[in-house]
Amino acid sequence: MALPRTGPVRSEPARIAILEATAALFAEVGYDHLTIEGIAARAGVGKQTIYRWWGSKGPLVAECLLEGRLLPGRLALPDTGDVRADMAAWLTTVFRVMEAEQRLVLSLIAAAAEHPEVGAGLRDSLTGSASISGRLDAAIGTTANLQPGALTGELAEALIGAVVLRALSREPAGPADAERLLDAVLGAPTG
Amino acid sequence: MALPRTGPVRSEPARIAILEATAALFAEVGYDHLTIEGIAARAGVGKQTIYRWWGSKGPLVAECLLEGRLLPGRLALPDTGDVRADMAAWLTTVFRVMEAEQRLVLSLIAAAAEHPEVGAGLRDSLTGSASISGRLDAAIGTTANLQPGALTGELAEALIGAVVLRALSREPAGPADAERLLDAVLGAPTG
Repeated sequence: MALPRTGPVRSEPARIAILEATAALFAEVGYDHLTIEGIAARAGVGKQTIYRWWGSKGPLVAECLLEGRLLPGRLALPDTGDVRADMAAWLTTVFRVMEAEQRLVLSLIAAAAEHPEVGAGLRDSLTGSASISGRLDAAIGTTANLQPGALTGELAEALIGAVVLRALSREPAGPADAERLLDAVLGAPTG
Repeated sequence: MALPRTGPVRSEPARIAILEATAALFAEVGYDHLTIEGIAARAGVGKQTIYRWWGSKGPLVAECLLEGRLLPGRLALPDTGDVRADMAAWLTTVFRVMEAEQRLVLSLIAAAAEHPEVGAGLRDSLTGSASISGRLDAAIGTTANLQPGALTGELAEALIGAVVLRALSREPAGPADAERLLDAVLGAPTG
C-alpha cells in the first residue's frame, strides 16, 4: 500500500510540527506507547490529519528516523580521515542501536516493506551520495577492494543490506562482527 | 511479537496439510486473495487451528516459502561448476521473482520484521551452509575476493542483504545489476 498522498496537499509547517511531536513523544514514552492521539494533541493538529497523511504510526516514525529526528546524532558516520576505522565505529554503533531499539528498527523495516516511499527513502538515505557510498568514494585506494573503479554504490548496498539482514535475525552483534563484515566486503586495509 | 507456540502441540500431519493447502491456493488465487478460511477448508482443519499456530497469513506464507513450497525450484541455485556464473544466474532469477511476486516478497520481509522465527529462518535459509555461503566456500580461489580464509558467511550475508535492500526499494533489477553486485562483493574472476 502506498503512503496516502491524495486528499489535501500537506502543509509543511504542520508536517514539521507533527514530526517534532512524534520525536519528542517517542523519547518520552517509547514506540509501543506512542499514539496518534497523543501526537496530534502535542502538535496541535487534528488526528485525522495524521491518519490521512501517514495512515498509522509506523510510517510516521519511519519518516522521523529518515529525517534524523530520532536517535539524534547517534547514527552519524564519524569522520576522522580513516574511513575504515570510521566505518567500523559506525557499524558498531548501528549494531548497538539495533539491540537497544530493536522494536523501532524492526518496525522501520516492516514499514519499508509495506510502504514504497519508506522503502525507497530507507535505501536512499542509507546509501546515498551524502552517506556511505560517498565516504567509500573518498576512500578509494585505502583497502584491497576499494580500488579505482570500485563499485561503491554496490558496496554500500551490500554493507547496509547485511545490517538489515542482521536486524531481521535478532542476533546480537558487536565490534568483532563489524570488523569481519568490513574485512569481507572492503578487504584488508592497504599500506 | 513471537509466532504463537503456546497452546496445543502442533500436529505434524496437520501442519503439512495446512502448508500444502496454502501453497496450492497461493498458486491459484495469489497472496491478496488468500484467506485463512479458504486454507482451513482445503486442508480439512478448523480455521482456529491456523490462527492459533500462525496468527495470520503472513507467517504461514513465510513458512511455506522457507520450506520451498512456493515458487518451487525457481529459486534453486544452479550448479554448473562455475560458481560466479551460477551466482549471476541465480541473482538474475531472484531479481525477476522479486518483480513478478513483489507483494509476496515484501510480505515475507514484513513477516520477518514482525516475527522472530521468520526472521531467523529467512537468514538461515538464505545464508546457511547448504546454500550460498557453502557454495562460496567451494569457490575459494576463483575470484579476487574469494581467497583462502575468505569470510564466506559475511560475503553471503552481504549479497543477500543487498537483495533484501533492493526488494525494499522496489527498483527493478536485471542481469547487469547482478553482475555489478557480484563484481563489487566477490571481485573479478581470476585465471
